[in-house]
Amino acid sequence: MSLASTEAATEIIAAKRSDSYSSTTRVERLLARFHQIRNFTNVLCLGLEPEDYVVQSMPDVSPTKWHLAHTTWFFETFILKKFLPGYRAEVPEYAYLFNSYYNAAGDMHRRDLRGLISRPTVKEAQRYRASIDSHIDALLSDIDEKLLDQVEPILVLGIHHEQQHQELLTTDIKHVFAQNPLYPVFRKPKISAESSAIPPQRFIEFEQATVAIGHDGRGFAYDNEGPRHQALVPAFSIGSRPVTNGEYIAFIEDNGYTRSEFWLSLGWMTVNEQRWQAPLYWTKRDGAWWNFTLSGFRPVNKSEPVTHVSYFEADAYANWAGVRLPTEFEWERAASECTIEGNFAESEIFHPRSVAVASAVSADRPAQNQHLHQIFGDVWEWTRSAYSPYPGYRVAPGALGEYNGKFMCNQYVLRGGSCATSRSHIRRTYRNFFQPEKRWQFTGIRLARDPQ
Amino acid sequence: MSLASTEAATEIIAAKRSDSYSSTTRVERLLARFHQIRNFTNVLCLGLEPEDYVVQSMPDVSPTKWHLAHTTWFFETFILKKFLPGYRAEVPEYAYLFNSYYNAAGDMHRRDLRGLISRPTVKEAQRYRASIDSHIDALLSDIDEKLLDQVEPILVLGIHHEQQHQELLTTDIKHVFAQNPLYPVFRKPKISAESSAIPPQRFIEFEQATVAIGHDGRGFAYDNEGPRHQALVPAFSIGSRPVTNGEYIAFIEDNGYTRSEFWLSLGWMTVNEQRWQAPLYWTKRDGAWWNFTLSGFRPVNKSEPVTHVSYFEADAYANWAGVRLPTEFEWERAASECTIEGNFAESEIFHPRSVAVASAVSADRPAQNQHLHQIFGDVWEWTRSAYSPYPGYRVAPGALGEYNGKFMCNQYVLRGGSCATSRSHIRRTYRNFFQPEKRWQFTGIRLARDPQ
Amino acid sequence: MSLASTEAATEIIAAKRSDSYSSTTRVERLLARFHQIRNFTNVLCLGLEPEDYVVQSMPDVSPTKWHLAHTTWFFETFILKKFLPGYRAEVPEYAYLFNSYYNAAGDMHRRDLRGLISRPTVKEAQRYRASIDSHIDALLSDIDEKLLDQVEPILVLGIHHEQQHQELLTTDIKHVFAQNPLYPVFRKPKISAESSAIPPQRFIEFEQATVAIGHDGRGFAYDNEGPRHQALVPAFSIGSRPVTNGEYIAFIEDNGYTRSEFWLSLGWMTVNEQRWQAPLYWTKRDGAWWNFTLSGFRPVNKSEPVTHVSYFEADAYANWAGVRLPTEFEWERAASECTIEGNFAESEIFHPRSVAVASAVSADRPAQNQHLHQIFGDVWEWTRSAYSPYPGYRVAPGALGEYNGKFMCNQYVLRGGSCATSRSHIRRTYRNFFQPEKRWQFTGIRLARDPQ
Amino acid sequence: MSLASTEAATEIIAAKRSDSYSSTTRVERLLARFHQIRNFTNVLCLGLEPEDYVVQSMPDVSPTKWHLAHTTWFFETFILKKFLPGYRAEVPEYAYLFNSYYNAAGDMHRRDLRGLISRPTVKEAQRYRASIDSHIDALLSDIDEKLLDQVEPILVLGIHHEQQHQELLTTDIKHVFAQNPLYPVFRKPKISAESSAIPPQRFIEFEQATVAIGHDGRGFAYDNEGPRHQALVPAFSIGSRPVTNGEYIAFIEDNGYTRSEFWLSLGWMTVNEQRWQAPLYWTKRDGAWWNFTLSGFRPVNKSEPVTHVSYFEADAYANWAGVRLPTEFEWERAASECTIEGNFAESEIFHPRSVAVASAVSADRPAQNQHLHQIFGDVWEWTRSAYSPYPGYRVAPGALGEYNGKFMCNQYVLRGGSCATSRSHIRRTYRNFFQPEKRWQFTGIRLARDPQ
Repeated sequence: MSLASTEAATEIIAAKRSDSYSSTTRVERLLARFHQIRNFTNVLCLGLEPEDYVVQSMPDVSPTKWHLAHTTWFFETFILKKFLPGYRAEVPEYAYLFNSYYNAAGDMHRRDLRGLISRPTVKEAQRYRASIDSHIDALLSDIDEKLLDQVEPILVLGIHHEQQHQELLTTDIKHVFAQNPLYPVFRKPKISAESSAIPPQRFIEFEQATVAIGHDGRGFAYDNEGPRHQALVPAFSIGSRPVTNGEYIAFIEDNGYTRSEFWLSLGWMTVNEQRWQAPLYWTKRDGAWWNFTLSGFRPVNKSEPVTHVSYFEADAYANWAGVRLPTEFEWERAASECTIEGNFAESEIFHPRSVAVASAVSADRPAQNQHLHQIFGDVWEWTRSAYSPYPGYRVAPGALGEYNGKFMCNQYVLRGGSCATSRSHIRRTYRNFFQPEKRWQFTGIRLARDPQ
Repeated sequence: MSLASTEAATEIIAAKRSDSYSSTTRVERLLARFHQIRNFTNVLCLGLEPEDYVVQSMPDVSPTKWHLAHTTWFFETFILKKFLPGYRAEVPEYAYLFNSYYNAAGDMHRRDLRGLISRPTVKEAQRYRASIDSHIDALLSDIDEKLLDQVEPILVLGIHHEQQHQELLTTDIKHVFAQNPLYPVFRKPKISAESSAIPPQRFIEFEQATVAIGHDGRGFAYDNEGPRHQALVPAFSIGSRPVTNGEYIAFIEDNGYTRSEFWLSLGWMTVNEQRWQAPLYWTKRDGAWWNFTLSGFRPVNKSEPVTHVSYFEADAYANWAGVRLPTEFEWERAASECTIEGNFAESEIFHPRSVAVASAVSADRPAQNQHLHQIFGDVWEWTRSAYSPYPGYRVAPGALGEYNGKFMCNQYVLRGGSCATSRSHIRRTYRNFFQPEKRWQFTGIRLARDPQ
Repeated sequence: MSLASTEAATEIIAAKRSDSYSSTTRVERLLARFHQIRNFTNVLCLGLEPEDYVVQSMPDVSPTKWHLAHTTWFFETFILKKFLPGYRAEVPEYAYLFNSYYNAAGDMHRRDLRGLISRPTVKEAQRYRASIDSHIDALLSDIDEKLLDQVEPILVLGIHHEQQHQELLTTDIKHVFAQNPLYPVFRKPKISAESSAIPPQRFIEFEQATVAIGHDGRGFAYDNEGPRHQALVPAFSIGSRPVTNGEYIAFIEDNGYTRSEFWLSLGWMTVNEQRWQAPLYWTKRDGAWWNFTLSGFRPVNKSEPVTHVSYFEADAYANWAGVRLPTEFEWERAASECTIEGNFAESEIFHPRSVAVASAVSADRPAQNQHLHQIFGDVWEWTRSAYSPYPGYRVAPGALGEYNGKFMCNQYVLRGGSCATSRSHIRRTYRNFFQPEKRWQFTGIRLARDPQ
Repeated sequence: MSLASTEAATEIIAAKRSDSYSSTTRVERLLARFHQIRNFTNVLCLGLEPEDYVVQSMPDVSPTKWHLAHTTWFFETFILKKFLPGYRAEVPEYAYLFNSYYNAAGDMHRRDLRGLISRPTVKEAQRYRASIDSHIDALLSDIDEKLLDQVEPILVLGIHHEQQHQELLTTDIKHVFAQNPLYPVFRKPKISAESSAIPPQRFIEFEQATVAIGHDGRGFAYDNEGPRHQALVPAFSIGSRPVTNGEYIAFIEDNGYTRSEFWLSLGWMTVNEQRWQAPLYWTKRDGAWWNFTLSGFRPVNKSEPVTHVSYFEADAYANWAGVRLPTEFEWERAASECTIEGNFAESEIFHPRSVAVASAVSADRPAQNQHLHQIFGDVWEWTRSAYSPYPGYRVAPGALGEYNGKFMCNQYVLRGGSCATSRSHIRRTYRNFFQPEKRWQFTGIRLARDPQ
């Protein structure tokens, strides 16, 4: 990815400027952030056994061990090898083993074979992390302003890159554990049973307007969030909360999965080939729906937002309900005045909260905020927008230019973050993207509709 | 598909109204058009042997025989079975064999197995065509105005549907013949060798503007061309002519197919899996490029527009050239003042004309027209726009609602028609669509770029 | 294949020698045989439409048109190109298109793509046949004895080769027609309903003995039938008649297809992957079994030998019945005194006869013959012998050496011929072979067992 | 598998009988043997990291952890659950996870997904082993003679079963490590460089004879080694030593892998699809052949027996050399007088010894022994015999009947054991079997030929 422009500042930089040289120096804050995020990766792994780190349960999934090493490789490759004089890699093969998809950074190991690599062991991977972290410390310890201007944007990018992989690490280990009839537990459950009523689904109206879309350049953003530009957004309404498991069960029970009229042609093929009958991780036992969660196997809670649905399922559900999914511009416009708060990775729940609870929490908030419940956190919301470049978008030269642009094909944009996303990682302009058949992320449904 | 609105008139209707009841009645004109188009399907088949009608060379391709019968099935299913009292199908199995993808119209034979069906024979298929045509004649012979109002839009849709299949029949038989080392000839070549110079590629500039996009409701259009709506189109420039074979060879010779930096990630996978090294139908012999055409195997003509390229190749070429592909809105805006003329199916050349000749022809035209050569006909032009619904688009109920909407996923829009499209079929607002890896249509490249 | 030795004489040669120069010369008899067999290929095709000749319904199947041309190519390649001075192929590409698997004879078209080739047309293929036949006539018209000694064995081999393809042509077109919901008819049915009782299955006993196995060199034989050698065959019993449809239905109804204990491991995988529930071409309608035959779709006749079963099914049936399949040596020993007579291709029934009728016919015969009903003709009988070389077997040099030896892996031997085999083609020592999962030949079951 | 008969005694039993009640009791000897073999599995795992135990590098391979648990499951399922009153499994899911292919023992986890199961961890698997071993101790501690007669044959079978898995564990971890560019080392190399000359390949002649084939019932044997029976074995010669790497390189350099004339048809397809150019684990670097071994990556030693070749390669090599592979009867006859000694798993070298060394060792031996070098140990020797039942063979009832018989299809017999086989596991009559395309076992080539 390329930073949106040369002044593409980070949150840290932004903070610094507004503080106008506090006693805390720029480097210190940067390193503090770096270590904080690096450490959260370790926190996520508490409770895993060495054997758990090895498995790749499908090509989309990477072993935990690989995530540990790949995020480290990023700092080594794009910072240490470029900016630390005399730096030499301890294990040169890591450059090959832990490159994900940066063609310009050299050859790489085949993605679908990552689960065949037992070495380096977990301990060796941790040693690799520690070693690179030390070198980053050393590099920054007596860096001059000029070099820091070059290093900082990449370091900040690396931090956000690691946060992305923290989310993947979480959803990947969920998929790994789900293959095992012993159903291992990742985190003890924190959620108590809910009894409060589910608020009704309402549709908040927006008039046609020409609005600014994309990141405004203050603080960090990925290149795909810009350039900020004007767009004409016709009038629309958007749902006040995510679709719940209970509502989704009604779709299933109305034979939603066997009625072609609700489905995109490609979705219909997928449903039939994959024999989908419910969201990923759902199983019917004795007439009741159960689902595998990161806290074990338990009954489906009807008041939670439905999750682990593909774009195809989200779209079919909306068609069944007589409405549609929002575009990403509609979503961004609706979210523009909402506070970014909710159930994120920092809470370490790793499962969507009940709609009833979430609504109760935000009922104290004024105005529009209370109309759009759980728009951030809990579940990523599929939009009907194909992932494509904003007007004037240009891919940056070099390997980091491969971060976003080359994936702008056959994917759909998701917005708002999930229970596995870090609060400090998400933005109103953040564009996540996945192929329409993917289900292993915490993906959910927010509805929209045209003026009646 | 649903007609854009109830006043969705056909060209014939439009013509009738302006003539205000000429001696030629509405029905007569409708039938004349019907028979004209039905007959052109037969014209296309002149020169085919019965064996040629049977083959399906890949799942995308349908046997010629199937096209003959499927277009007929359309009239039988959506008109005769609904509106002709007492109509009974002679061979009930045809309903199963010749349904393409209309789930609401009943079960259907598997698409990829169409080449396994030797019966009905060609003669029987032709008999089926004649029989259905007679029934249509009979139905319309003493139809009352009220029923005609119901039948006409479907008949007109069926006519346009058949024209689409005429183009597919042509590109499909090209693919079939290309598999055969004997290289059968579909049409004797009409094109003489060209010597005139190729005009330079220029970029015509357009300012930012809010423009109306989509069909205005006058005459026939597919439902996906509407609703007409306002869109904000930022400033852009568009290439004055298609990219030529000669220019594309420069891309190949600059190792375009082996340099990942030009390619979308999915395109790069496709290039490597399929081992693409040039457009479909190209072969290198003794250092020179040859291509298979509907008039046989012959040297690649450098002054012709490059064709049989995928979206991936079109996009990679544009990246290599330092520019990009147009959006469909940019294309529609640029084409809005151009005359619809060019090399279409009616000319029965079935191959793109040289850019040199085409430019000479349009040099007599005034203003913008002469700046945008070959924007209609010759080759479909890939746009960077994912195929998605216009604001306010709604799928119609029933089987005909499956015409367009359910394909709005993982496809890209193409504009302008090709040498295999009928002149009477194309529109400025016409949205063709294919998956980004498809190459067997006459697809080509027009460039665009952002303001400098 | 290599003829067993240089004196490997044909039936014709054998006949000639015993006749000691009758007025009919050696060449005349050879040519008469050649034209007779070539003509029978045409007889088989009576009633086919040009479209039927094109289809390849699975990789094992070849289009009828291909069989016509390939058998012709054999004579052209191995006789005309070698022995007719100045011979030049009219269409050189045929050498590529119609080579089946003879690597030493040059490159070849991919087997699984034969159905994509619409040209040459059927008429052109027939013209090719006629042209090659004329050249063979010309070559033999004034051939000298010495050259004839070289040509004759290959011509005789070509005749037998064509007979093999006549059987394949028949079973292939059956498979093609079976894909079509219109169920085309190849031959009008000749079989009338049977009412006589089915004779019981008895087991004929044989003592342990050292016996001669393989062809004795008198008349034509394939190389894989030799060398004749001594083999120790332990005591065994063999079933008096093939297993019937009625008996096989009992196996099905006893859940034979869902009880793993009867199946080879590979067979069990195949049953589950392919979802087999009955022999190929069987369908259950309203509680009764129907099967597709070359005379159309009709109820399964319980008194006919079961056919279109794989080795896996034959073996599972035998296990269910508490017995086993015979080895090929047991079969050859048992058949050694039986008359070669039965239901062959010459009768043009192309379907197994009822066991009741067949037994009635052979009840007039003396001794052992009447104990072993239908051992020749009707259905090929799977043996439990893997197809492997006899002691001392050597592959001949050159392309004809590829006839048999290279297939001696992962196939099982079948014995006795079927209703699609020519009577003049079969021998007691004839070793047919197919992979254990194949079902599209007329394959059936004869049982054997160890001494009690 | 079924023991050949009720008197199917074990080595222990045999020993006991000859000793006629030594002070060491039958149970003590049995348990000593049990613990010795169980312990050797642990010995093999020394030096593995927990992560290494998890990986399945292809469907044929099982994770080390799975081998530990499956061999334990065997004793639990077939002994404890049947004979230990009140026995209850601690983790009932293990019955599902660690069943390999015994349909009669219940449902099982999919073989190709074994690498997706991270739990139980290695420690838990070891705890499972210890627990089951204790229960076996308990069961045998006060067993009466009658129950012992029932338990002992199964316990002995379980011991041999575990030895088979020890060999697989070794060859599987080799395959796992070979996928890793870091090339982990399983055992430090023990082999010193060799300089002595390679003895010439000679052919030892045998006359035609009727000989007894199969196990004579003294001591343990698998059911597929019987019944012992008479077979007529024609005259043949057999090679005095295995084919070496140096000889195999000559085949490669003579373009053996690109000349179809040496290959079985199925082998030729495999070579081309898999792009084989050398034995498994071989790589060419700077013009020299290297191979991956359990002691690391090192140059191919020309004096070692070639290993990791498929049946296809063994057969093609023999054809190239103008000879053939032996039948299993020829091999058994030739081996019948040879001493069982050589390079086995007990030596913990896990790589074939040089032919030069091995010959030096056996040069001291008298008579035929010195003519047939390395006929036991080092490499399994492919025979040309398809794996099929001996005359009179019957599958035993129940789950243990699935041990051998159901695999008698499309596999070839190998004889003699390898460097990964235990000396105490092999027999002259031992029939190993694999599909002809498999290469990950220590498989090699011994030649044979017909009388000249």
